[in-house]
Amino acid sequence: MKIGFVGLGHMGQEVARHLLIENRQLTVWNRSPERAAQLTAAGATFAKSLDEVLVNDVLFSMLPDDPIIDEVLIRSGVFDRAHKEIVHVNLSTISPGFASKLASFHRKKGQKYISAPVLGRPEVAKSGKLTVVAAGDLEILPSIQHLFDSFGQKTWTLGTHAEKANVVKLAANLMLVAAVESMSEASALVNGYGVDPGELLEITNSNVFACPAYQIYGKGIASNTFEPAEFTVHLGAKDVRLGLAAAEEVNIPMPLSSVARDSLLEAKAMGEDDMDLSVLGRVARARAGRG
Amino acid sequence: MKIGFVGLGHMGQEVARHLLIENRQLTVWNRSPERAAQLTAAGATFAKSLDEVLVNDVLFSMLPDDPIIDEVLIRSGVFDRAHKEIVHVNLSTISPGFASKLASFHRKKGQKYISAPVLGRPEVAKSGKLTVVAAGDLEILPSIQHLFDSFGQKTWTLGTHAEKANVVKLAANLMLVAAVESMSEASALVNGYGVDPGELLEITNSNVFACPAYQIYGKGIASNTFEPAEFTVHLGAKDVRLGLAAAEEVNIPMPLSSVARDSLLEAKAMGEDDMDLSVLGRVARARAGRG
Amino acid sequence: MKIGFVGLGHMGQEVARHLLIENRQLTVWNRSPERAAQLTAAGATFAKSLDEVLVNDVLFSMLPDDPIIDEVLIRSGVFDRAHKEIVHVNLSTISPGFASKLASFHRKKGQKYISAPVLGRPEVAKSGKLTVVAAGDLEILPSIQHLFDSFGQKTWTLGTHAEKANVVKLAANLMLVAAVESMSEASALVNGYGVDPGELLEITNSNVFACPAYQIYGKGIASNTFEPAEFTVHLGAKDVRLGLAAAEEVNIPMPLSSVARDSLLEAKAMGEDDMDLSVLGRVARARAGRG
Amino acid sequence: MKIGFVGLGHMGQEVARHLLIENRQLTVWNRSPERAAQLTAAGATFAKSLDEVLVNDVLFSMLPDDPIIDEVLIRSGVFDRAHKEIVHVNLSTISPGFASKLASFHRKKGQKYISAPVLGRPEVAKSGKLTVVAAGDLEILPSIQHLFDSFGQKTWTLGTHAEKANVVKLAANLMLVAAVESMSEASALVNGYGVDPGELLEITNSNVFACPAYQIYGKGIASNTFEPAEFTVHLGAKDVRLGLAAAEEVNIPMPLSSVARDSLLEAKAMGEDDMDLSVLGRVARARAGRG
Repeated sequence: MKIGFVGLGHMGQEVARHLLIENRQLTVWNRSPERAAQLTAAGATFAKSLDEVLVNDVLFSMLPDDPIIDEVLIRSGVFDRAHKEIVHVNLSTISPGFASKLASFHRKKGQKYISAPVLGRPEVAKSGKLTVVAAGDLEILPSIQHLFDSFGQKTWTLGTHAEKANVVKLAANLMLVAAVESMSEASALVNGYGVDPGELLEITNSNVFACPAYQIYGKGIASNTFEPAEFTVHLGAKDVRLGLAAAEEVNIPMPLSSVARDSLLEAKAMGEDDMDLSVLGRVARARAGRG
Repeated sequence: MKIGFVGLGHMGQEVARHLLIENRQLTVWNRSPERAAQLTAAGATFAKSLDEVLVNDVLFSMLPDDPIIDEVLIRSGVFDRAHKEIVHVNLSTISPGFASKLASFHRKKGQKYISAPVLGRPEVAKSGKLTVVAAGDLEILPSIQHLFDSFGQKTWTLGTHAEKANVVKLAANLMLVAAVESMSEASALVNGYGVDPGELLEITNSNVFACPAYQIYGKGIASNTFEPAEFTVHLGAKDVRLGLAAAEEVNIPMPLSSVARDSLLEAKAMGEDDMDLSVLGRVARARAGRG
Repeated sequence: MKIGFVGLGHMGQEVARHLLIENRQLTVWNRSPERAAQLTAAGATFAKSLDEVLVNDVLFSMLPDDPIIDEVLIRSGVFDRAHKEIVHVNLSTISPGFASKLASFHRKKGQKYISAPVLGRPEVAKSGKLTVVAAGDLEILPSIQHLFDSFGQKTWTLGTHAEKANVVKLAANLMLVAAVESMSEASALVNGYGVDPGELLEITNSNVFACPAYQIYGKGIASNTFEPAEFTVHLGAKDVRLGLAAAEEVNIPMPLSSVARDSLLEAKAMGEDDMDLSVLGRVARARAGRG
Repeated sequence: MKIGFVGLGHMGQEVARHLLIENRQLTVWNRSPERAAQLTAAGATFAKSLDEVLVNDVLFSMLPDDPIIDEVLIRSGVFDRAHKEIVHVNLSTISPGFASKLASFHRKKGQKYISAPVLGRPEVAKSGKLTVVAAGDLEILPSIQHLFDSFGQKTWTLGTHAEKANVVKLAANLMLVAAVESMSEASALVNGYGVDPGELLEITNSNVFACPAYQIYGKGIASNTFEPAEFTVHLGAKDVRLGLAAAEEVNIPMPLSSVARDSLLEAKAMGEDDMDLSVLGRVARARAGRG
């Protein structure tokens, strides 16, 4: 099977690396070509143009946001010149609304489209154990499941409406940010009574909150260490923005996510875009005059 | 060792039952005597008066709130007539401010005081696997640790300031309510795009949120079933109120907990006091016009 | 008519001063006697004991909060020894729940009770132009209306349930704090685009917001000057706390007031208790990293 | 002076009508031509094409949002064919970011641009008493001030950065929505104690809140009547969305506006898009189980 891959960011590179191990015929493309170095050294072909990536059977894309996908893949017209039966598997975190548009764009061209955003931090991507949430033209999933399995430990399917996969991804990330904000606020509270937040989180996170979301981001809050980032404030804020916008589209009030959004903006206002989400712990303390 | 136990609510009865197995000399007292029936049948003595409970070496109390403890144990003057070296172990969920007062009240009388609120649902209490958070006169803890072990699987200690145990208990419960609210809001969001909340929660709760807080309360949200309650709206609202008040005492803003508070009030306004916390899932949907 | 007056804080002194001009037979009492100096110099009698104040026809009270009134006027038992037909006019800002209790306390003794909280800043009190909101045993209002008129420019009546006056007072103050928070947030926004908040507020407050609440507190925000205080953060936070608690009693969610509460706590955490409410402008800017 | 006018919505028609009285040479254009009927009957010329509108000295535009202006005026290329020294006066409510882009777009073409959003309801527009907030190439303002005066009672100027006018407009509207939400919440509170919201609002709005924002929208809340709309939920939600997005661009947390946003979404979820903003009163009551 001939595979194309577009978008070699941190996550994209890891996913492509696993795909290459599974399937040697991999052509990659990225706006900054230097990011393809490791992959080409490992045997991948770097495409001279985007068109070249689209002669493949499957195109995986992992691009930063709606406007970039729109510009690079849609307005550029490359899909008009693509392999007739190409399957576009879009791993990017995008808005459900845009996912619907992509699905309908490909449908009109007789092409297949699957939204397949992934859950998991870069480290999880590195070990090939991402969680994949897929929706769209799933009838072709069996033929490419082995590709998903190369980088994911499990694929969840959500039916034929592509946007369902994307809204689930956003909802999961809203829950993640809320968990970090919740630990941050609780930590500020106990701190106000002289208790080390690490003591609180050791108790809760070995108990009813004994799960990765709490244990991983709780460490940063407990140790007051926000670098290196598992998940940056910048990316968290982007996902919260997408989540709130998706909710607004269908008239869903999101008061908890609005609180998280404001805390992330406070972090950004302090210049902490590239720090880990757990810096919300510092934001909560600062708000309480204990920064 | 002669032990007294005051406060035979749902949780109190379970704790007392485990204590009795460990230590046969148990005198119990409750304002509604009928709640002691099972315990006396199992060998406990029912005290004719509160004074009688206070001739013991250790008094465990598990009463509903600050004012009741104040009335029953403090203003009543019973501790003036108590065993000179009595140890008061207070399992109740109370405010940190009141815990400080209790500690100082006992200190003046030369008595020992330990705040030892417990974490865990009634079912966990039933199986004797509560988590105990203890602070106060911990020098006497070794001599009574076996009592704690009868109903708890683990005791966390937080030093000599009794109120620290209480603020940690409240912080843990604020985190719990926030988790339920977070799942509720995320569920309303995906529901707005035609995704069954159960699908979202199956994915998240087998993954980064694979822990009791999410799995237990997620079930109610997914199944839209809020009875019988693991943890009622009524009790959740009480703990959030205590948590917010404790935060206010020391000037800690709590925006996330304020959102949870308002959602619990919406549930109460709909008459859902006795339903499970997971009814917040219904509240979030109702807010989105999908009630 | 013989009048007693208890509670000579900032507001109380001004009200008592106007009462004395209207009605020369005024006996005053205060826990700190020195605060009565100006009034006794002007002809008022200082009571040797609280009992002495209660032999009058009317008792005005203007005390800081529920617990103090409870201690000073109720638990002390002074009303048992009071003038049989005494009318208790309570100008204090108290919780509606406590107002109900006071009304029922007096009803049982055959005494009259009116809740009559006042709206207006100290300066308005000084000029005798407060707004009075009265509820309770209003059948006796005509006989004392001239007393109200001495310090108030208008008396609004709300029927026989005393607590209605108190909840209206709290609601009005919640609206006031919300207005200040709203200006603060809007000012932070325009500031983020290089616009002087004073320019925004000059436009809005000479237009759709051309009213005292906006014009008075807008000045502090525009000029970044928070002293002297028209209305302190301390008192604002107290009223918001009472308002939120009153709402919680009857299951009313108050998301906007919760935001105001948190901003006031941020101000308090920065040590700004005694500054003017308009210091919320600084809090909003600080949150945006422009403190 | 030859004037063009694009965008004949409710507000646009009123503004154009006043312009025509002041200046007979008015060419208008609208995507739905029938909306120009009254104006052409009164002497205005309907342009056959957009190009025809751009041969004038001044172009006033009053279009619904950023994307429509982008499509109609920018991407269409009409300004390439416009009068060399045309002045574009943009009355539309747009994002500050887009205003900057428009300013720079015109600067490159050697054209003048003024952002001049207006404050005021349709009724105020009808009477020609809008408030104009202007920024941008203000050196040409004196030559067109008489045009502004035809529909506005006052023009506030904010310097050469066009986007400042737009952010002030958004901030003013965020304050307006916050005021309505504040009255709504306060009304729900007093209602919980049996007080008619009309009684509360009569007191507050004749006192510290004696200004149009409170008096106009308070009427709807007091009377529980939300039609006809002064300012629709739909438009309010649009402005809040723009305001929050503008704040997010420069990292300004907006907790109060987020609360307003969620209440507006609740109103929309109930199908109340076309009702008056004061329907937030009903939303607040519904949240309290008193809908």
